[in-house]
Parts: sequence; C-alpha cells; structure tokens
Amino acid sequence: MTRSELIQLIRDRGSYLCVGLDTDLSRIPAHLQDEEDPIFAFNKEIIDATRDLCVSYKLNTAFYECYGVEGWRALERTVSYIGPGHFLIADAKRGDIGNTSTQYAKAFFERLAFDSVTVAPYMGEDSVRPFLEFPGKWAIVLGLTSNSGASDFELQDVGGELLYERVLRTVSGWGTPDNLMFVVGATQTQAFARVRALVPDHFLLVPGVGAQGGSLAAISEHAATGDVGLLVNVSRDILYADAGRGFASAARARALSYQQEMQPYVDKILQVKNIG
Amino acid sequence: MTRSELIQLIRDRGSYLCVGLDTDLSRIPAHLQDEEDPIFAFNKEIIDATRDLCVSYKLNTAFYECYGVEGWRALERTVSYIGPGHFLIADAKRGDIGNTSTQYAKAFFERLAFDSVTVAPYMGEDSVRPFLEFPGKWAIVLGLTSNSGASDFELQDVGGELLYERVLRTVSGWGTPDNLMFVVGATQTQAFARVRALVPDHFLLVPGVGAQGGSLAAISEHAATGDVGLLVNVSRDILYADAGRGFASAARARALSYQQEMQPYVDKILQVKNIG
Repeated sequence: MTRSELIQLIRDRGSYLCVGLDTDLSRIPAHLQDEEDPIFAFNKEIIDATRDLCVSYKLNTAFYECYGVEGWRALERTVSYIGPGHFLIADAKRGDIGNTSTQYAKAFFERLAFDSVTVAPYMGEDSVRPFLEFPGKWAIVLGLTSNSGASDFELQDVGGELLYERVLRTVSGWGTPDNLMFVVGATQTQAFARVRALVPDHFLLVPGVGAQGGSLAAISEHAATGDVGLLVNVSRDILYADAGRGFASAARARALSYQQEMQPYVDKILQVKNIG
Repeated sequence: MTRSELIQLIRDRGSYLCVGLDTDLSRIPAHLQDEEDPIFAFNKEIIDATRDLCVSYKLNTAFYECYGVEGWRALERTVSYIGPGHFLIADAKRGDIGNTSTQYAKAFFERLAFDSVTVAPYMGEDSVRPFLEFPGKWAIVLGLTSNSGASDFELQDVGGELLYERVLRTVSGWGTPDNLMFVVGATQTQAFARVRALVPDHFLLVPGVGAQGGSLAAISEHAATGDVGLLVNVSRDILYADAGRGFASAARARALSYQQEMQPYVDKILQVKNIG
C-alpha cells in the first residue's frame, strides 16, 4: 500500500485506528474454544465487527508462533481474510544480518501479504535496508517504545542526544516517508515534540493506548502531521472488551468510541489541507 | 540444558562447534528439490553427517518463516530430529514488551524444545526477562554483532562506553552465567578483551566464522574462559561445502576440520581444569 492510499483510507473512514490482533487463546470466549481453529474464528468475528472503523490491522507474531504450525496457519488465514482494504502490519520486531533480513522480508511481504514489518534497529543499516527494498512495502522501525524497559537503552545519552533520537535521525536517512515509519509509544507523551522535530513527515505507529494507559487525545494533539501521520494501535482493550458471547459487539463498541474520538481530528487536518 | 551439561558435551566431543541450519531452498542440491519436505531432507543429512562433531545446532528462523506453514513444519521436524543431545538455539532475534516476550519464550521453549533464543536488547529489561524465567532455558542477547551495521549504534559512545559495552554490563545484571549468553561476532577480534572484562564467565555465541571471514584461532585464543565459554557458529561454509550429491560428506569434512582445530583448545582448557 502506498502512502497516498493509506491517507485516503484515513480520510474515507475518519479513522487512524489500528486494531492489534494479539489473540491469546486463554482469553478467547469459551464457546469458540471447540472450533477447529479458535484463533482464526475469534479474529474473523473481530475483523467483521471492526473493519469499517479502522484502517489497519497489526498481527503480533508471538501470539501465533506460540502455537507452532497451527498458529502460523491461523496467521495466514487471518491475513487472507482481512484482504487488501487495510494496511497490514506484521508486528514481528525482526532484524538480522542482511541475507537473513531479506528472508524475513520475503516471509512477510511475499509469502504473506503484509504491507509492513516492525524492525528492531540495534544491528544497524544492513539489518534494516532489506525491508526497504520491496515496492509498496514498509519498514516500521522501533524508536521509543511504550514499556518501562525503554529507559534502559533507548533513553540513554549518546553523544548529546538520546539513543532513540539517534535512531530516528540515522534511520530516517536510510528510507523515505514513503517506505519507512517509526514506533513511538503512546505513553511517551513528553517526547512527541522531539520526535516530530526529527521525523516531521514520517508516519508513526503508536502502541500503548488502552491496556498500557496512553492517551489518544495527547497523541492526536501533539504528534499528528498535515497528513495525520499516525496509526494508533489498540489491542487488548478492543479484543477482550467482553469475555463472553458478546465479545464482537463489545469490541465494535470500543472500536467505535476510538473512531469517534478520531473523526474530528481527521476532518480538521485533512479538510484544512483540501481547502488549502 | 544446564551449563554443566553443556560443558560436559564440549569435553566429550572436543568441540564447541555450533552448526547453523540457515537452510536456503535455492541452495539445496537439485536431487533433493523433489522431496516432500526438501528443507527437512537436507537438514536430516547435514545433522547425520555432523552430529558427533558439534555440540549445538542453531536454526535461523527467517529461513523457515519465509516458507510459511511448510517452513514452520520443517523447523519443528528438524528440532525433533536433532533430539536432546545438542544445545538447541532458536536464532530468532526476538524481543518485545513483557507479555509478548513471554509468548515468544513459550513458542521456542515449550511448543518447541529449544534450549535458547537469541534476543535483541533495544527494548530493555522487561523485553529480556521473560526469556530468563524458564528453568534450564537460556536467553542469548545481542552484544556486538559481526555485520557492518554494528557501527551504526552498537559502537556508538554512551556516556563513556560503547553501546554494546553498556548492553553487556546492564543485561548481565538481569541473569546469570547459568541462563544468559551473549552474541559477539567473530569479526570483532579487537573487542574480545573488552568483552571478557565485562562478562568473564558468560558463554558467548560467536557467529561470523566462514562466509563472514572471522578467525577461529583468534576467538579461541582471546575469548575462551576456563570453561571454554564459547559456541562458535558456522553456517554457510558447512551447509554449502558442495552443491551436489556429495553435500553431506563435504559438510562432514568441513565440520571435522573445525572440530580438529578446536580439540587442542578443549583439551588444554578442560584438562588443566581437571588437574587443578
């Protein structure tokens, strides 16, 4: 998916919501546990309930790999079921020496129809570049994450700037706003201004709203660009809004409340641009 | 596998060789391409040819994921075929927020019978700790890698030390030499003394010998500990020693030459210890 296609989706749906399919078998309602593929059965209902309210789905590969071959099959079926109308993120945090990163890129971009993969930057340029070499595909590189461990390395001083700032500054030189995004956690409100000074045009994937406590209003007010430039991910708060048979309608209600909070920002940002 | 069991394997086989099963379908001999599962067929012959010469096998997950469900099945079959007599490494470079890292740990330690997973440190403590909480299992955290991109972040100054030094110093406080190893590339000869000053007792997983040009002699002379403390990985140089029907015997010959170079170091290090 190209950048302009993604922006058009955001405009059409009045939403920059990404639904995170971190599907945990132990939290799937009891009535689905006997299905032949309970993870896919759950995902299918969540997708049907949220498809018109979000522009993106993010599949956290850990929650599929932990079920081996069956889990990988559920991943493939889910990607296929979503189809081409959403920006598809493999939240895989991959990154290795060049020939290995190329294999990961093939896994997610060619074998599966993902638009993007999340990438860890520690190993540097040759570990990231292979993900940037597939037309219409994206690398989403970790910048400043939402977890407490962000302080261990990401927030350490590296020659007068913080490591995550060095990462944003360096990695943004390897790609363009058309094939590169960054992960910045919703809980890192104090850093949004600095992030936008370093990467004013790149889309940000923002996890950490909902279960992790980040504020959608703070993100929208302080990190949006003239193209919106945000994909805000919510996983557990939508997936597990209800533990019983009503889980899909509860998920829809939760997703709708996020979409309704996003709509005015989308209208304001993209209408102003239309008039201008 | 415990640390003392691993050291016993090294003593018994006169070897600290790890064979890296980065099995690339495009490099498998033609006569295996028509097998029902060519990757497993290839791995099986490599394992049969090298089993007595190495103490460890490292499966690079990228080379399996790129074939989807079939690839993941080949990974499972390979792990099962190797069995319990080797230290099994999932070279997966994983790492995510705590609940996700726990799922990855379950994928490799419980669903599959790996002894260890390689882990990227960027996201900090809560992304690493879940891998340290499974008895008899290990996290192998990236320290200083063998690729050119190591200079982008790993070799940057962080408050008077290099980032990889900070990683070794900080992460070594989260685990012990009984559940934590570090990756240090064979091409980083100049850094071995500094690495050993920071982590004198931890095992190192050392990739980069063979196709990437690292020297086995330099590693063995400058990075071994009183328990050997090394797993030296060779992948392409063994797997693809011959492109035809003789690939397995060529792989054995190449593995044997590495084992023979290692034997005197093992004898010297572990005999001295026995006498002492």
